[in-house]
Amino acid sequence: MTTTQPDSIVLSSSLVDENMDEMISDLQILIRQPSVSAINEGLEECALVLSNMMNKAGIKTELLYLEKPSSIKNYQVSALTVAPLVYGEVKSKSNPNGKTILFYNHYDVQPVDPIDKWDENPFSGKVEGNMVFGRGSSDDKGEIITRLKAVEFLLKKTGDVPCNIKFLIEGEEEIGSPNLDKFLLKYAEKFKCDLVFWESGYIDDKGRVIISLGQKGILNVELKVNGPLRDVHSSLAVAIENPAWVLVQALSLLYDNNDGKILIDGWFDDVQQPSERELKQIAKEFFDGDSFKKEYGINTFVNDPSGFEQKKSLATAPTCNISGLFSGYANEGVKTIIPSTATAKIDFRLIPNMNPKTQFNKLVSYIRSKGYSEEQLEISFISGEPGYRTPLNNEYVDLVVDAAKKVFSDVILNISSPGTGPMYSFKNLLNVDSICIGSTVLLNKMHSPNEFTNIDLLNKATKCFIEIIRKMAQYK
Amino acid sequence: MTTTQPDSIVLSSSLVDENMDEMISDLQILIRQPSVSAINEGLEECALVLSNMMNKAGIKTELLYLEKPSSIKNYQVSALTVAPLVYGEVKSKSNPNGKTILFYNHYDVQPVDPIDKWDENPFSGKVEGNMVFGRGSSDDKGEIITRLKAVEFLLKKTGDVPCNIKFLIEGEEEIGSPNLDKFLLKYAEKFKCDLVFWESGYIDDKGRVIISLGQKGILNVELKVNGPLRDVHSSLAVAIENPAWVLVQALSLLYDNNDGKILIDGWFDDVQQPSERELKQIAKEFFDGDSFKKEYGINTFVNDPSGFEQKKSLATAPTCNISGLFSGYANEGVKTIIPSTATAKIDFRLIPNMNPKTQFNKLVSYIRSKGYSEEQLEISFISGEPGYRTPLNNEYVDLVVDAAKKVFSDVILNISSPGTGPMYSFKNLLNVDSICIGSTVLLNKMHSPNEFTNIDLLNKATKCFIEIIRKMAQYK
Repeated sequence: MTTTQPDSIVLSSSLVDENMDEMISDLQILIRQPSVSAINEGLEECALVLSNMMNKAGIKTELLYLEKPSSIKNYQVSALTVAPLVYGEVKSKSNPNGKTILFYNHYDVQPVDPIDKWDENPFSGKVEGNMVFGRGSSDDKGEIITRLKAVEFLLKKTGDVPCNIKFLIEGEEEIGSPNLDKFLLKYAEKFKCDLVFWESGYIDDKGRVIISLGQKGILNVELKVNGPLRDVHSSLAVAIENPAWVLVQALSLLYDNNDGKILIDGWFDDVQQPSERELKQIAKEFFDGDSFKKEYGINTFVNDPSGFEQKKSLATAPTCNISGLFSGYANEGVKTIIPSTATAKIDFRLIPNMNPKTQFNKLVSYIRSKGYSEEQLEISFISGEPGYRTPLNNEYVDLVVDAAKKVFSDVILNISSPGTGPMYSFKNLLNVDSICIGSTVLLNKMHSPNEFTNIDLLNKATKCFIEIIRKMAQYK
Repeated sequence: MTTTQPDSIVLSSSLVDENMDEMISDLQILIRQPSVSAINEGLEECALVLSNMMNKAGIKTELLYLEKPSSIKNYQVSALTVAPLVYGEVKSKSNPNGKTILFYNHYDVQPVDPIDKWDENPFSGKVEGNMVFGRGSSDDKGEIITRLKAVEFLLKKTGDVPCNIKFLIEGEEEIGSPNLDKFLLKYAEKFKCDLVFWESGYIDDKGRVIISLGQKGILNVELKVNGPLRDVHSSLAVAIENPAWVLVQALSLLYDNNDGKILIDGWFDDVQQPSERELKQIAKEFFDGDSFKKEYGINTFVNDPSGFEQKKSLATAPTCNISGLFSGYANEGVKTIIPSTATAKIDFRLIPNMNPKTQFNKLVSYIRSKGYSEEQLEISFISGEPGYRTPLNNEYVDLVVDAAKKVFSDVILNISSPGTGPMYSFKNLLNVDSICIGSTVLLNKMHSPNEFTNIDLLNKATKCFIEIIRKMAQYK
């Protein structure tokens, strides 16, 4: 295949192909360091492992803190409330005044439970055929490794990079990046750049790379209903209101499961509707509903939409999702109690222009208007971030599409991923657009047991980033 | 106080008062042996501890099995699927052809979680002032000890008991007595008796003993909604139906929390309505709503009834109670997933004449009629038993009331407890009525953390049972 490619791609291919073992081995090192932000496990340790690896690759690296506690000396690990950010930089010797690209990634991972559903230790990094398994193998340590290696290989082979490169790798993405804005504000000068490459990007099951220009926002809340002072014998249910019933009733007012509609008053008021150009782009996308259903073991889609409507929803529809529901006795057998509390965790995906705090206030007003007092039903804002879509006419979009076409069988341009990331913050605080391109397959079981990444796609993504970096040299 | 009592009570009082330390010490031995039927923990061990104690007291004891596995030799502990039943018997020498009373109790206890809400080890048996703490201290080991000691003290003092005594102490009451019927059938001859004393009875906060003649039935079910094959990234909630939403929707069709009404078609068809005499008896009962509310930290009662209606509900209303609700991520922080399953545990208290299997079938038909398929929403029958009320004109009711009046400040006759027990099985299979009288205070935190029993009430209940046994000698 390489024989039909232009020179730069021949060079990229051999560079990458010759060093795949080293890439996988380094990825395993990252996976084997747990870094679960939800429970504050191993975050600084992982930041140190990663920065050491980047330094060895020739990337000048430092850990950034919002407030560096005096107890941290010589990078010793301590208990921090904010995970450190790993910053890396390589200045181009040949093109020091050229453009600067910034790779945004995150070294934290999702929790591993349900732990009993994993076939292996979630932090094993086990290689099996084309797959590397482990929590974070795909989201986001696999993506980190392709970018890191693209820069490392270029430096090794040529002693230089043809444009300026920056890395911003945070440790709190999986809990909604609660401190990223503060980092972006505090270190704005350091992070200055012309284009951000987003932490991940998808490749579909036909090997087509999906270049995505946007992300939904998110609002994470917790609803907690307070019942009797303690769990009480359930024979008293004739007299004592059960908080689980109150929760069920309140939840049923938020969302109509029959037609997949959010019922909160004014929820859609601020939604940024897709432009004509965006709708046309959505129509061009591929979506294989049957293989999607098969993969997830479902019979129908929510609200049973047509192909176009399904694609449009993935890119532009808000969600109201219960991610956790718990009250009372969850173990084997029977415990006849009225639980003392009942709790639901809900994540709402937001569309650009929906502000998480505004939406939270709408939720609170709605629930209070239905007669639930603060004492009875506590509503907590856990985290939130707005969504953003890079315009289709951003000047670097074509460059990235061209580079991707040289490596992947085909390219799909997507106006927004269904997922969330702090793209809005970069636009808002650094005034820079972002593009998502990466090595992840939608079926990689991110956030699920047995997460894995594909070695052949790590290889291609690395080649693609080398090509992108080279093409950036053309912009003065 | 004893100076104003007739002879028999003077004798009972000194008998009991002189041996309270021994009684508490033996109760601690029982508490310290965990016996959690929901998780099959320590059941046979507890049966052995208890039968040894009864043997020492002079009660001829044996362990009964439905099917004794060959692996059990010399009472060695092994893994059984059915907890053994402890049977005890004392024949009256002076009155061998007189009446026989049977004490029905259970040595199993409720699970201890939430374990972090206990101030002490739940199996400590710690004594503090008038209280003995621990899971089972009140329900039902405290009740067992008063009956055991009443018989033991009589035997010690007089060398005889004035009527025949039997003990039937099962190990599966807290999971709905799934095998009691089989035991009653298999050992019907052994259990033959004229009156059953139920495993527990209440004393109100004014020290009035509540003699209860009935119990509600129960139906325990589990609803499980199946969603995607595994937990899935919640960004896909636009496409994949969330099983927690399906569960919320289905539950909201079962019960209207606003007016405390069960909505299942035909649910009330078979309910045995209280007789005129029963209604009059309900009207005579005491119920201190304010102290009840204060104890449980609630502001209002379900459906906000008047005093009479509240008392009537406790004795005669069915319930639909969520005892467990769980789906997805329950820990700290956020995990943005669509859970793969969502489950609810529900217990329904039933009124006499409601058959658990019939009610279960009504539940299933109702849910299926709402469009939920078996594949989507699994409905499991976990356990069930019908309710029963001993008629107010049973010939022994007055005897028990009279005995209780000699020991307690006042006596309340109650037509049915709000709780459940297999009273129906005794009527159905042994054709014998039951009366509940015991040492438990409604606020003893049965089924809750920090369960305790009151030493002064153990003392009184023991005296009362001695008195009852003596009075039974009058019946030939």
